[in-house]
Amino acid sequence: MSIAVLNDEMYMRLALDMASKAQGQTDINPVVGCVVVKDGRIVGLGAHLRRGEGHAEVHALGMAGDQAEGATVYVTLEPCSHHGRTPPCCDRLIAAKAARVVVACTDPNPQVAGRGIAKLQQAGIEVEVGILGEESTRMNEMFNKYIVTRLPFVTMKSAMTLDGKLAAKTGDSRYVSGAKARELTHTLRHRHMGIMVGVDTALADDPELTTRLTVPAVHPVRIIVDSTLRLPVGARAVQDRSSRVIVLTTEGADPIKEAALAEAGVEVIRCGGGSRVDLKLAMRKLGELEIGSILLEGGGKLNGAMLELGLIDKLLLFIAPKLIGGSAAPAVFQFEGFDKMSEAIRLEEMAVERVGDDVLISGYLRNLNEGSAE
Amino acid sequence: MSIAVLNDEMYMRLALDMASKAQGQTDINPVVGCVVVKDGRIVGLGAHLRRGEGHAEVHALGMAGDQAEGATVYVTLEPCSHHGRTPPCCDRLIAAKAARVVVACTDPNPQVAGRGIAKLQQAGIEVEVGILGEESTRMNEMFNKYIVTRLPFVTMKSAMTLDGKLAAKTGDSRYVSGAKARELTHTLRHRHMGIMVGVDTALADDPELTTRLTVPAVHPVRIIVDSTLRLPVGARAVQDRSSRVIVLTTEGADPIKEAALAEAGVEVIRCGGGSRVDLKLAMRKLGELEIGSILLEGGGKLNGAMLELGLIDKLLLFIAPKLIGGSAAPAVFQFEGFDKMSEAIRLEEMAVERVGDDVLISGYLRNLNEGSAE
Repeated sequence: MSIAVLNDEMYMRLALDMASKAQGQTDINPVVGCVVVKDGRIVGLGAHLRRGEGHAEVHALGMAGDQAEGATVYVTLEPCSHHGRTPPCCDRLIAAKAARVVVACTDPNPQVAGRGIAKLQQAGIEVEVGILGEESTRMNEMFNKYIVTRLPFVTMKSAMTLDGKLAAKTGDSRYVSGAKARELTHTLRHRHMGIMVGVDTALADDPELTTRLTVPAVHPVRIIVDSTLRLPVGARAVQDRSSRVIVLTTEGADPIKEAALAEAGVEVIRCGGGSRVDLKLAMRKLGELEIGSILLEGGGKLNGAMLELGLIDKLLLFIAPKLIGGSAAPAVFQFEGFDKMSEAIRLEEMAVERVGDDVLISGYLRNLNEGSAE
Repeated sequence: MSIAVLNDEMYMRLALDMASKAQGQTDINPVVGCVVVKDGRIVGLGAHLRRGEGHAEVHALGMAGDQAEGATVYVTLEPCSHHGRTPPCCDRLIAAKAARVVVACTDPNPQVAGRGIAKLQQAGIEVEVGILGEESTRMNEMFNKYIVTRLPFVTMKSAMTLDGKLAAKTGDSRYVSGAKARELTHTLRHRHMGIMVGVDTALADDPELTTRLTVPAVHPVRIIVDSTLRLPVGARAVQDRSSRVIVLTTEGADPIKEAALAEAGVEVIRCGGGSRVDLKLAMRKLGELEIGSILLEGGGKLNGAMLELGLIDKLLLFIAPKLIGGSAAPAVFQFEGFDKMSEAIRLEEMAVERVGDDVLISGYLRNLNEGSAE
């Protein structure tokens, strides 16, 4: 059966579905879906599909044409009230003479933040806010952090054995998790603007760090943390032209090595004068480059450093039904650690599900976020 | 988590979602959704929203613009190859230079039936058929019957007590099922072109037979089976102007009563010379009037007669957690019945689910369909 009852939520659910499936293709912009309904019939559908192109409302109102007059417009995010790369959607809704606008959640963008709703109401349009609000907010969690803090939202993804290892003591790691988990990982690459690894991973596995699925997908910007510029120009990630390559290094790194990498098209960014890359500074610089979201697929050291600094927002841990053993086998998180169990970093909103043969545990590191958004 | 892996199925699922939520607003046309994808990004979205207006492909290609060249187009139903109320979508896809077309299921419409796919292939477009094919076929089950047989697809819906009664022995029936079941029933009214009851129900409850939900919806054509034209002109269903009213009667019915009903805007259709309405003939006549789907909310006699004649395609039975008792309390199905259990009419593909406080049992009466499509 599974017949969805015809109500506000059904239309908003459709708007959410459209937006959700556009995740990964709107750059630093949020994903937004819009459904225009007149006299009990859907007359327009739209989603924001690419930064700089039409917003969801523009597409949906375009499809609706004259039928938008007196219509109810369902939109997953508060319509924009400011002139960005496109004119304000509020003006478009007012000009189209919409009678009612149903909004899932307000836009945290300081340039909007309630002004869109106020503008519609001033124009005499009935506005209702909150239907599927939580889901819509969650859908744009990466945008929501970036637009307020200008820092990228970091999702750490790792696959590990039941004994918490990333690889065997020999370094062999192909593969820890199964095919379904790897497909999901590549979908995550499509959905994040950047992918970040340590140079040790780049040297050990020589990965391309691209998105490989059964259909074409968006490739993330490759970000390699490399304090002393050990990354060879011949590395696959450098030679592959699918997307930009950024190497994060230190002030002290060899300028000759930098020149060679730059020659090969790599953008080298120096973060701090210490012996290791200043990761907090790196996040700020990546934010300035409009990289709004990063998928961290680090080795144990990089994962541990990012965790300790409170730079990880979300954790996805694929646990394979395997026990590899060996004290030298690398752990998922390598960091100094705490003395007391009560000091442990807590995963919040922990969820668990099966993904093929593996188990996926996910959750948020909220307390740390507050630190990172200082 | 619930991240959908980026693949052909994900895009087709989105196309299906859009189509599914347009159910009830496309008249005798099928619901169809379309997603255009280029270089790993959705560039166009569309659904068929109203008969006579743009097909799903036209809307989606319109949104995609020049980006449709070389794109993959996901469409839930085979693109049409014939000139109907709009030009063939195949030509539109060929003109847009789509590289690949992924189709959920072929169009049973004898005017298409594979010709659309052949035409695309002849133009050098790669075509793949079958992704989510079963779901897409099921979604248009009403269209699929009508377009081949020109007979309406009949869904019988009833609410009953655990002891199989439609009402108390006093006739009181407000309400058997709970609020959620009633909301679903009204959504079913939105999704069917006609709603059919017997005159006894019309007299006993004086129902409006409209769609009443928290949002505006499409009202079905009201069809009342009334062999001797007992329906008063003052009946709510007649006085309410939300949609057409058709009264099915017999050749022998009083012409003066017919004139009075016609004066009030009712269309009276005579079906057969017997003492009861010839329901098989009625279905053919309703089909000729382009009523492609009917929600039967009959009393027990009409339900029984429709069942015996093999005119019911799908059954939805809401079972309330109540026992009403009384041998005079009306049963859901009143008909002569069979002598042997082995002769019983079987419900196929029976499904069961909870709907609020009630249980919904649904299924198909397939063997009978074959008879009705003679």
